Order: sequence, then structure tokens, then C-alpha cells
Amino acid sequence: MKKFTFAPEKDIDVIAVGRIAIDLNPNEIHRTLDKVNTFTKYVGGSPANIAVGLARLGKKVGFIGKVSDDAFGKYVTDYFMEKGIDVSHVTPSSGGEVLGLTFTEISSPTESQILMYREGVADLALAPADISEDYIKRAKFLLISGTALAASPSREACFLAMTYAKKHDTKIIFDIDYRNYTWKSKSEIAVYYSLAGQRSDILMGSREEFELMEMLDKGNDIPDYCLADNYLFHGNQIVIIKHGKKGSLAYSSDRKAYKVGSFSVKLLKSFGGGDAYASAFLYGILEGWQMPTSLEFATASAARVVSSHSCSDAMSTAEEIISFIADSNEKGTVIEEIPWNQSIEGGRSCR
Amino acid sequence: MKKFTFAPEKDIDVIAVGRIAIDLNPNEIHRTLDKVNTFTKYVGGSPANIAVGLARLGKKVGFIGKVSDDAFGKYVTDYFMEKGIDVSHVTPSSGGEVLGLTFTEISSPTESQILMYREGVADLALAPADISEDYIKRAKFLLISGTALAASPSREACFLAMTYAKKHDTKIIFDIDYRNYTWKSKSEIAVYYSLAGQRSDILMGSREEFELMEMLDKGNDIPDYCLADNYLFHGNQIVIIKHGKKGSLAYSSDRKAYKVGSFSVKLLKSFGGGDAYASAFLYGILEGWQMPTSLEFATASAARVVSSHSCSDAMSTAEEIISFIADSNEKGTVIEEIPWNQSIEGGRSCR
Amino acid sequence: MKKFTFAPEKDIDVIAVGRIAIDLNPNEIHRTLDKVNTFTKYVGGSPANIAVGLARLGKKVGFIGKVSDDAFGKYVTDYFMEKGIDVSHVTPSSGGEVLGLTFTEISSPTESQILMYREGVADLALAPADISEDYIKRAKFLLISGTALAASPSREACFLAMTYAKKHDTKIIFDIDYRNYTWKSKSEIAVYYSLAGQRSDILMGSREEFELMEMLDKGNDIPDYCLADNYLFHGNQIVIIKHGKKGSLAYSSDRKAYKVGSFSVKLLKSFGGGDAYASAFLYGILEGWQMPTSLEFATASAARVVSSHSCSDAMSTAEEIISFIADSNEKGTVIEEIPWNQSIEGGRSCR
Amino acid sequence: MKKFTFAPEKDIDVIAVGRIAIDLNPNEIHRTLDKVNTFTKYVGGSPANIAVGLARLGKKVGFIGKVSDDAFGKYVTDYFMEKGIDVSHVTPSSGGEVLGLTFTEISSPTESQILMYREGVADLALAPADISEDYIKRAKFLLISGTALAASPSREACFLAMTYAKKHDTKIIFDIDYRNYTWKSKSEIAVYYSLAGQRSDILMGSREEFELMEMLDKGNDIPDYCLADNYLFHGNQIVIIKHGKKGSLAYSSDRKAYKVGSFSVKLLKSFGGGDAYASAFLYGILEGWQMPTSLEFATASAARVVSSHSCSDAMSTAEEIISFIADSNEKGTVIEEIPWNQSIEGGRSCR
Repeated sequence: MKKFTFAPEKDIDVIAVGRIAIDLNPNEIHRTLDKVNTFTKYVGGSPANIAVGLARLGKKVGFIGKVSDDAFGKYVTDYFMEKGIDVSHVTPSSGGEVLGLTFTEISSPTESQILMYREGVADLALAPADISEDYIKRAKFLLISGTALAASPSREACFLAMTYAKKHDTKIIFDIDYRNYTWKSKSEIAVYYSLAGQRSDILMGSREEFELMEMLDKGNDIPDYCLADNYLFHGNQIVIIKHGKKGSLAYSSDRKAYKVGSFSVKLLKSFGGGDAYASAFLYGILEGWQMPTSLEFATASAARVVSSHSCSDAMSTAEEIISFIADSNEKGTVIEEIPWNQSIEGGRSCR
Repeated sequence: MKKFTFAPEKDIDVIAVGRIAIDLNPNEIHRTLDKVNTFTKYVGGSPANIAVGLARLGKKVGFIGKVSDDAFGKYVTDYFMEKGIDVSHVTPSSGGEVLGLTFTEISSPTESQILMYREGVADLALAPADISEDYIKRAKFLLISGTALAASPSREACFLAMTYAKKHDTKIIFDIDYRNYTWKSKSEIAVYYSLAGQRSDILMGSREEFELMEMLDKGNDIPDYCLADNYLFHGNQIVIIKHGKKGSLAYSSDRKAYKVGSFSVKLLKSFGGGDAYASAFLYGILEGWQMPTSLEFATASAARVVSSHSCSDAMSTAEEIISFIADSNEKGTVIEEIPWNQSIEGGRSCR
Repeated sequence: MKKFTFAPEKDIDVIAVGRIAIDLNPNEIHRTLDKVNTFTKYVGGSPANIAVGLARLGKKVGFIGKVSDDAFGKYVTDYFMEKGIDVSHVTPSSGGEVLGLTFTEISSPTESQILMYREGVADLALAPADISEDYIKRAKFLLISGTALAASPSREACFLAMTYAKKHDTKIIFDIDYRNYTWKSKSEIAVYYSLAGQRSDILMGSREEFELMEMLDKGNDIPDYCLADNYLFHGNQIVIIKHGKKGSLAYSSDRKAYKVGSFSVKLLKSFGGGDAYASAFLYGILEGWQMPTSLEFATASAARVVSSHSCSDAMSTAEEIISFIADSNEKGTVIEEIPWNQSIEGGRSCR
Repeated sequence: MKKFTFAPEKDIDVIAVGRIAIDLNPNEIHRTLDKVNTFTKYVGGSPANIAVGLARLGKKVGFIGKVSDDAFGKYVTDYFMEKGIDVSHVTPSSGGEVLGLTFTEISSPTESQILMYREGVADLALAPADISEDYIKRAKFLLISGTALAASPSREACFLAMTYAKKHDTKIIFDIDYRNYTWKSKSEIAVYYSLAGQRSDILMGSREEFELMEMLDKGNDIPDYCLADNYLFHGNQIVIIKHGKKGSLAYSSDRKAYKVGSFSVKLLKSFGGGDAYASAFLYGILEGWQMPTSLEFATASAARVVSSHSCSDAMSTAEEIISFIADSNEKGTVIEEIPWNQSIEGGRSCR
């Protein structure tokens, strides 16, 4: 695949936009949430986790986001600063909004109920006035998380950020990151996801998220490669479709397709892997690595997170990931190039 | 300019989407609205007027819209049926919404204050579920009015309609039709106007509307042709920028520019001309006429409406417009081909 | 009945609170609303009509209300001034609210569909900050209309006005005036009507409105006098329960009950009588007349309004009402004193 | 003071109405909230705490409330059942509402910042339809917490509950419990607090809360006894005005006034005492104790809670409180009868 290249004056690797939240993870595991007595707080939210992951990997990271004007807002901003993330565009909201919360249980390694507090959250109060054209111009990549499209004015802020990105050759990564909150209807989801997906350069999401974006019924027969084709046609360079435990598929604009497996680890929890994956994959792309190398690196990073207690706090350094891969018996076997039309789900041909 | 061509199975000329409202025009003229005693009711709303105009010109017209479930909703639906407009996709709203109202005064031929009732209106309750892919597939043109983008779920319904139009080669006319109601911020306006403008095939609006769409400050120096260039670049075939009494400018994708003047008539009122213009212009395009012919026809139709009491009810037949032009001393002088970069407003060069 | 007496410094007879709206009455009668072509505009809204009625009868009247900051707001304020109503506490709203509208049809003398525009209306934007304690202190009577309790902040403004009235011995008239708009549930209606009804000195409404207030099912067996008793027990001096064409019942705290019939007139329309009735009855009370005299006067005033085209504009002078009664064959027969427990609806005994 | 007496068929001592929430108390103390790492969850919310306190004291307690339909809603309901509180009228909300959260810090024994999550909470979704007349009829006391008046439909549910209470001789305790959330304006607060305060039999709140209820400016000169007089006049039997560390004042309808001090304990935290106080005071009243005995008992219960980590979980049994008093050097000195007009704040005479 052709490498992404950038003007030399771009001094920020990635600016992430959207949600900074708080995860409250259970200290007592193997029990359901109602029985958990004590919780530990961590920085959470998909784009925040990805930003932390990239910073941990040594990249120059910025963030555009709204946080609560309270002790929790201070906590997350301090945490970002400590990790070396530029917080010049992380601002306190003025309307009394709060940080989103995610209470999690770890009832078993593979099951995990979550309870989200998403009413009146600061992240969705991000407004077009918070989007600086000059700031976005400085970045190589702009990461948009789909949850930020769930309501106004955050939705308009994201589309404005994408307009500036297009104008200044900042590449757009759209991570669909669907959360069943705030959205008013399935059609609304489909309309805004597809508007964003048609504007991005790298698009990633689960099979279910692609189906939402395309308004496909459950049990439809559309093969994965057809979903990918549509967004490559609209200008994406890379499309990644995840299938949970069955692995994921990655398609690039040079018509190569890869099946991505996973490293065997002792699972502690079933969440957090996606954000580690995204940050490590993007690290590879920024380093100019080929797709298989980037994908293996991403997969290894994900494996490390799902075996630890937090998401943000458990992000790995490049050295840690590299030695994890080196130590693994599965090195070199996790990524496999496949024929374009060999899908995980769906039939044989596009509609 | 290359003619628009369509698959033979397309049996509807134009489907308009959006607002059907009621105009309450003053029976006492030359006085301000507070002093008007009696009002006459007419069907109103820009896309409704354009639909009526096209039907009056003999075209096959459909409409996708929500009306109130009351006597006024019945009135407008009956009126459409009487004019031969297909109302199979004009449905009553279920949430107690009302038809929008526009009270007008005719205090002088050139001045006219209006008072709009736009809270809880049925037209903005149009939802994605109301949009039929099969119906849009049947149409040559889909007319989207910018007012329909002012709020959810009408906004999403329009974007969904545009998605279906793109998929089935139905050409999109985007008439910006800005109304200072319902919108929450200037950034919101700009974001959704530009998303729609980048998807349309024919784009029309006033200079002020283009400035809103581009977030340009009052008194900016951007020439008209630069505004047009941007949207032609995104795939529009025709861009029309109106400058009120100074005339308007029409740009086509074959790099021809026209200055459009007006026929001298005894003005009764200052509103309604735009919708007559749009419907007659679109008639010309559907007939396969060249730009100058279509523009002259449009201008003549507008002239006839501003000298009568209503908008919808005063739409002309093709014969009436043709003989109006024939009778005019200005025949053949109203449209002038001009150099591409000869603008009405702005400086000499694009930023 | 004991007369109401007041401190000599009270220089305003009645201050009405609440809705000023616009009636758009049909110029073409004997047809349904969808077929009406032209409308004549009048000042409307129950408390506005009562205020106009009292002013027409020569009383000193004030008003506390919010109107739109537009041509219609100017119209109604000008109209009030012209009628001699003090408009020092009628203020334009600042949030873009509009005047409520009532389109009416006169399809037959006894039937009349109406179409109300009540979304985003100025009258419900009346806020506690608009309520002046000093102003209320000056009034003998404060008239509260139940529609003003339908939403915040108008609801709180009314309760605050009642608090001031209680404090300064301004008597409260609560006219239930139920409109099926804005209210969120039947329980909400009952809660606030009863809170207001327990605070008033004169309470008037239809049988249906009393049932709403008491959360009684349709077809209940509660006699009228039990409904009256409850509110007399809470301190009302007069309770009036209307039964449409069957007449109405008036109860006073000195345990007298009257059945009120009606004068025979040629009906033009079925609405407007109630407001004429209320203003004329209150006039009688202010004049110190006995109940039967006041009730006969009220009934005559109502008869005159239902035989004319408008509500506000058709209010009578005292002379007109007196000569109407004098000319009538029914003089002295319309009001009848009845035993306390002789009801129009319900069984024999209270629950 | 005259004892409250009740019909023998009343089989529930107290039904509390309103908020059940979750407290998340810090495991690390002596640090601000942003620095707290882990939290322990407890049942919280003032009426919930009072209910738990009364149950712990052996009283028969019911609750009318809405909880979230999720793991946290299950947790609080289970906890209530475990404590012997009747949960037959504690129902899950159907609109996706969440339980309110209160994150606390214990930065010093006297200072404590809290961070509340009150958007979209289940407790404010309590609706009139949830209020059972038969259930309230069974109770001796109905406890209404002022926070439940902050928004609809909970507000109307409370007024309806009070209507039923009045009808069936269930005495009303109104605990003002002001929280700076959800309310839209100061006038709104004053209007609904005073409507409730005029209906209650026992009224308790802080001086600041009484000032809010009476719309008094900060620094006003109104003595405490005037505030009490107003609500005794409206029918309250007992009025308690709290002054934080300066103690509180209790007034009874037999014109006796008491100054209430506090027991010296080693403070752990500055919150939770009020609910312990209310439940223990009410216990005394239910036992038929005199005011001074009830007040001393209440004060002792409060002292025990502020020296422990939680609110609900730290409620005492009667034996514990009695032996706490017995062991204290301050026994018998904490409550002092004072002249009626000896206030803690304000001047000498009422306005």
C-alpha cells in the first residue's frame, strides 16, 4: 500500500476528537454489577484511550474535547498532561455538563455488562466554536469517533473538523464506535455514519457497526468485501471490519485483503482491546510500516490490554509490544493475506 | 451545456421534498401587518410553490412531505390534488404538529414584513421512515429545500432522500431557501448546507445564502465565481447565485457564465418570485432547453408572480410565460453571457 | 350574600392574568375551516376577553401578560390601550415567542371546530419576575385563567400572583378555562387546578372542568352541590358550575343556590358567551349587586355576544345589557333560587 | 405538645416518597475528589436514608419511588428489602432513566465537596400514576422530600400524594432537602416549597432553605420565630430550622421553642447527620415522646452517623442511640427550652 505522506510542517501526529469519560472498574471480579462494592476510576472513552495509547507509543498527540468543570474534569485533564497529550484544546464545558461514566463488571473473562451514564455529558457539548482550523492544519491524522456524531452540537463540530481536515490534507480516521445512547433512531445513525464514512481515509468498525451504517437487516447476505468496496470507492485508503472472536478483515485501496486473528492470552476482561488495536495500528501506519506488520502490532497491543484491569492505564509501549510478539508462539501467523472476496460473513456477491 | 438524460422508466419529472405551509396574505394593502384586518389563505412554502409551478407548467410532479392532521392539512392536500400533484407521499403527522403559517403585509411594492409561525410545524416532522427509495427512483429530479435541513428528523430524511437519489441517478436540486427559524447556530447552518451543496447537481441560492453556507463574514471579498467554482468542483452541473435587484448569475459545468436581469413589471409585492423562477427554470431544463432560454423563461415567470396577490395560486402556464416574453420589449436582452470571472460582488481573485 | 369590601386605597377593580391571543374568525360562514378563504382578526383569549368586557362596562382594569415582540403583539397592546385597559404590565417576550392563534369556523350556529396554534406562545412565557407585588396590592380582584397553569414559567407566575393577592386581601377569581393544549397529563391538570381552586374566592368552570379538577371519571355520580361544597369549604365565596345548554348553577357561601337559564336569541356562533358572562357577573359583584341580579346581567351579556361575529369586539356596555334585559320577555325568569342539593348532574349524595 | 394520634387500621408508620440514589464514598480520605482512586457504593438519597434509619429503629416503613431498570436499581431495591422496607411501590422506570449518583470526598472532617449526577434520574420520573391512594391511607406519616418537587412529573406525584394524605388523615412531614440541581429558577423553588410547606404537619429545613422558600435575600433581618410562625399558622404542628454548627431551633404549635445543640464526637465527615436526625426524631414522635426527648434522641443519632463512613449503612438501632446518650457527658444538656422570640439569626421582630 502506498504510504501516507505529509507536509513537513505538520508537527502533530494525531488529533483525536470527542469523548473523554471515566471508567469505574470493579475491584471485586466474578460477580455482577449490583454486587460490586468498590470501584477504581480510570480515564476512559474510546478516543481518549486511543490518544493515551498513541502517547504511550511515543507519538505527538493532541485532543479536541469538552470536559466537565469539576473534579472529574480536572482529573482527566491532569492525566492527559501527565501522559504528554496536548490539552490546549480540551476545555471545560460551561453548561453544567458532567463527564460520562462507565461502570463495568467483570463477571467472567468473556462476559461483561456495562452501565453507562451518558445524560448531559460534556463530550457532546463540544461545539463548532471549539474547532480550530489552525490546530487541525498541524495534524497528520484526525481521529473521529462515531459516538461524537450522536447529538448536536458535537455532531456539527465533527463535520466542521472534517471540513478543515480535508482542506489542509489532514487524513481522517473514522472509528465508528457505536454506543446505544443518545441516538434518536436507526436512520439517524445510518445517515451520519455514512456521511462521515464517505469522508474518511481510514475507516474501522465492527460488522454490526457497518450494518448499522448501511441500514442492513440482521442476517443479511452482503459479503464483507462489498461493504469495504463501497467505502474504498468513496476514497478511503483502508477499511477494517471486525468480527469479534472470529477475527477481523482489513482491506486497502491497493486491493489487498487480510484476515486478522488474535494472540492467545489469559483474558481478564472482554473490553478495551479495540482502542489498543486502533492506537497501535495507527502507530504502524505513522511509522510507514506495511499493512501486515501494522496489523500484527495492533493485534498484540489488544491482547495485552484485555489481560489487564484498565483500558487507558494498561496501554503498552512499542518495546513492550515488540517483545510480546517476539515471545509469542504465534508470531507471524496471526495475519494472513486472503483473496479479496473471501469474507467472514455474507454470501458470495454484492447486491 | 450537456443535457440531463434519464432512464426511460423514470415516470416522474420532479419530486419536491419539504415544507407545505399556509400563506395568509393581507386583503388591505399599503399598511403594516398590525393594521391588517383580514387575510386570505393560500398554499405556501417554497418547495410547495415550486411543485405547484411545475404542475401548472404541465410536468409530472410528486411531493414528499408531512402535513398537519387537521383542517389546514386537508386544505393543502386537496389543493395539491386539484393541481395534479401526486400526494401519495404527503402524509398527516401524528404528533399534533401544525402547518407553518406566514402572515404577510404588502406595505409597499418593495417592502414586506412577514411573520412566521414555525414552532411545532409538521414539515420538520418528516422522518427517514417517510422516505421511499422506490418513489425517489422513479423521479428525474429531487428538489431539496434548505429549510428542511433546519432540524431533525426532517434533516435526516433529506440526507436519506439524497442517498437514494444518488443511488438511482435521480438528479438533486438544492434550493438553499434560508429562513431564520429553527436553526440553532451559524455553524450548524454552514455544516448542513455545505453537506447538501456538495451532493447536489443544481444548486441555487442568494449571495447571502452562499455566504452562510461558506461561513463568510459580511463584506468579504470573495468573488461570485469562486463560490460557484467550489460547488461545480464537488459535482454540480449548474450553480445560480442571486443578488436581489442587481440580478443573478448562473454558472454551468461547461464553464459558461450568464448574468440574469429582469423584466419590467408593475410590482405588487416583493416575494414569491424565487419559487416561480425555480419552477420555470427547471421546466426549461426538463425540456432540454439551453441555459439562456431556460433562464429567460424563469425570469419571465418570476415577473408575473410578483405582480399578483399570491405565490402558489399565481403560477403561470407555459403559454402565459411565452406570450409574456413575446409581448415584452425586453425579449432577448434579459440574459447576457459574461466572462467567467465577472462577478457582481467580491474582488478579483479567489483566496 | 355578604358583599366583598375593600380597602379604599385599592384603585384598580380587576387585574387579569394570562393569555392574550388572536382570534381569526371566518368571513365565510356555513362551511368547514378547510373551505374558509378569508379571516378577520380580533383580540382573543379568555382573560383578555374578560378584561375587554369589564373595560367596556366602565371598570378600571389592568392586565399582567406577555405578548409577542412583533406586529401582532403591537396590535393587541394597542387594542387594549384603546379600550382603556392599563398595559403597564403587558410586556413583550424576549425569547421569540408568538401570540397564540385561534382559527374558527362557523359551520352552523351550534357547531364550531377550532384550530389553535399554541406552540411557543408568549402567554406561557409569563414568569415570576413579571409579577409585581405592588401592582397586585392595588387591585380588588385578581383573575386567574386556568390555561395559564398549563406550563412553566406561567404556572409559577400565577401561584406567585395568588400568594401576593392573599397577602394583600386582593380577592381571587379562578376561571378554569380548560384548553386541551400544552398539559402533559390528566393528573397534572388535576393537581394544579385544585391547588388554584383551593386558593380562590370565586371559582367558575364547566361541569367537565370540575370533573377534570377532581379526577372524576366520565359518568360519575357526584352531584353538583358536592363539588361546590368542597371548594366553599376551602374558602371560596362563590362557586359556579356550568352545564352548557342545560344552564348553570351558582352557589354562595351563605348556602344559597341558583339555577341560571338563558335568554332566547338568534345564535350566530357557539363560542364567546362564557367570557361575556364572567365579565358581566364580576361587574355585578363589584357594583355590590345581589347574586340573582348579577347572574341575570351576566346571562344577558352572554346572549348578546353569541349573536355577533367576534368575542372581544362584541362586548356590551352596561346600558346595552340593561336595555336588552328590559326588552326581553324573559326578564326576571332566567334566574331561579333552588334547594341546595338540587343538581343538574350526579346522584343524590356526596361520596 | 399534643401527641399525634391515628386510626387503629393504619398499619404502616411512615411512607417516604422520592429519591433513592447511590453514594460513592471515597476509600482514600484527606484528599480532594480528583485524587480519589477508589469508591465504595452505598444506598443514598435523603428520603432513602431516612427510610433506612426508621427501619433500623424498628418502625414499619414503606417507600414510593422510581428506580433505574438496571443493576443499580436492583441493588437498592435488594438493600431495602434486606432492611425490611416494603418495596411494593418501588418500581423500575421505563424511560431508560438512571439512579442519581453522589460522589463524595472526605478531604477534612468539616469540608466535603460532592459531585452529583442528576441528569435523567429515575427518581424524578415518579409520576402521579405511581401514587396509590390505598397505600397512603395505610400510613401514619408521609415523608416528602423537597428534591422531589424539582421537576415534573415527580412534582405532581408529590402534590397528589399530599392530597391523598390530607384526605385520609396521614400526617405530612416536609423535609425541604434543597439540592442545587434541576430547578429552573429561584421563584420556582419558592412557589413549590411554600405550597408544600403550607400543607405539611411537620416541617424541617435549614435556615437557608427557609430563606429560599420565602424568597428572602441573603443577610435579611427576619428572626427565626417569624419564619416558624408563618408555617405554624398554616397548620404545621412542628417546625424545625437548622443552623448548621450553631445548632437548630424547634417550634411546636403549643408555643414552645427549643434550642438544639450537639453531642461532641470525633467527626469523620460533614454529611449524613440530617437524615439520621430526621429518622430518629420521627421515631420519637411515633413513640409518643415529648419534644425534648425526641430532639435529644435525634441529635444523638446524627452524632453517630457523622463519625462513620456511610449514611444509610451507619444508621443506628434505638439501643445504640440510647446507650450513646447514656455514655455521654452531655446527656440532658443538649436540648434547652428557650423563649419563643430568641432566634439564632435575624432581628427582633417580624416584618
